[in-house]
Amino acid sequence: MIYGDTVKPEWVDYNGHLRDAFYMLIYSLTTDAFMDRIGLDEAGRHARQRTMYTLEAHVSYLREIKEGAAVRVDTRVIAFDKKRVHLYMEMFEGEGTEVVSACEQMMMQIDTSGEPKAASFDDEVGANVAAMERIAATEARYAGRVIGLPVRVSAA
Amino acid sequence: MIYGDTVKPEWVDYNGHLRDAFYMLIYSLTTDAFMDRIGLDEAGRHARQRTMYTLEAHVSYLREIKEGAAVRVDTRVIAFDKKRVHLYMEMFEGEGTEVVSACEQMMMQIDTSGEPKAASFDDEVGANVAAMERIAATEARYAGRVIGLPVRVSAA
Repeated sequence: MIYGDTVKPEWVDYNGHLRDAFYMLIYSLTTDAFMDRIGLDEAGRHARQRTMYTLEAHVSYLREIKEGAAVRVDTRVIAFDKKRVHLYMEMFEGEGTEVVSACEQMMMQIDTSGEPKAASFDDEVGANVAAMERIAATEARYAGRVIGLPVRVSAA
Repeated sequence: MIYGDTVKPEWVDYNGHLRDAFYMLIYSLTTDAFMDRIGLDEAGRHARQRTMYTLEAHVSYLREIKEGAAVRVDTRVIAFDKKRVHLYMEMFEGEGTEVVSACEQMMMQIDTSGEPKAASFDDEVGANVAAMERIAATEARYAGRVIGLPVRVSAA
């Protein structure tokens, strides 16, 4: 699945480029598009009394992006179970083929009929998840990363 | 270091809570405050011709946060070297002591005098980094995480 957007002026920071948090906003809008695709668009959320929450997100910032740039996000599924989806997204600028940023996210379906709680996909949504484009974890170049430096400090 | 903010109406999504990307914006504003503290505030960035870029960010979403909530972010250093800082941030709501979200980030200092390139801290900024509050990696509960599900798909 491809999501497209354009870098808005208000997403640019004092460094003159897309602020880290607004890469994440583009990924967030991408996961909205993913939800639309699996039957959890606005109408689906209300009819099914289901939505999805983000449990965890890892973002790699590889290249700067400037105001007005067109970006596209290629979205694939690394793994899923009855209520969770592990998504892998790569961002590109214009018609470029170099990855400018990547994001993996774990999302979970939530029952919104009362207090929010985890809930399994119904058959239709589950089938839609299973039908999405996939990528093997070993092929997802910027997934599975741990942040670290060789020398760590001692707690003061 | 503590950064404080309040959840703005425009940061709330269709789920009625703080959108994932706007947790990241609060962390982004926290790292701005961190830069202020180490001598890379606006005046320091211009005088030194240095800034910092985010290389990677990992965010854990543990609890929902609603519009108008006061949040505070406790920020400590897990590790640093001559040009990079590995930051660990925990977010709390109001006077609460339960972590509602956590974020680790790798940041790198950049020389902005020409084409942006990595640059070592000068003595003053380096000393300021070394003087920041620290946390051992083993104590940073939500750092070092890998995202994954037990069963992964094969690439279609």
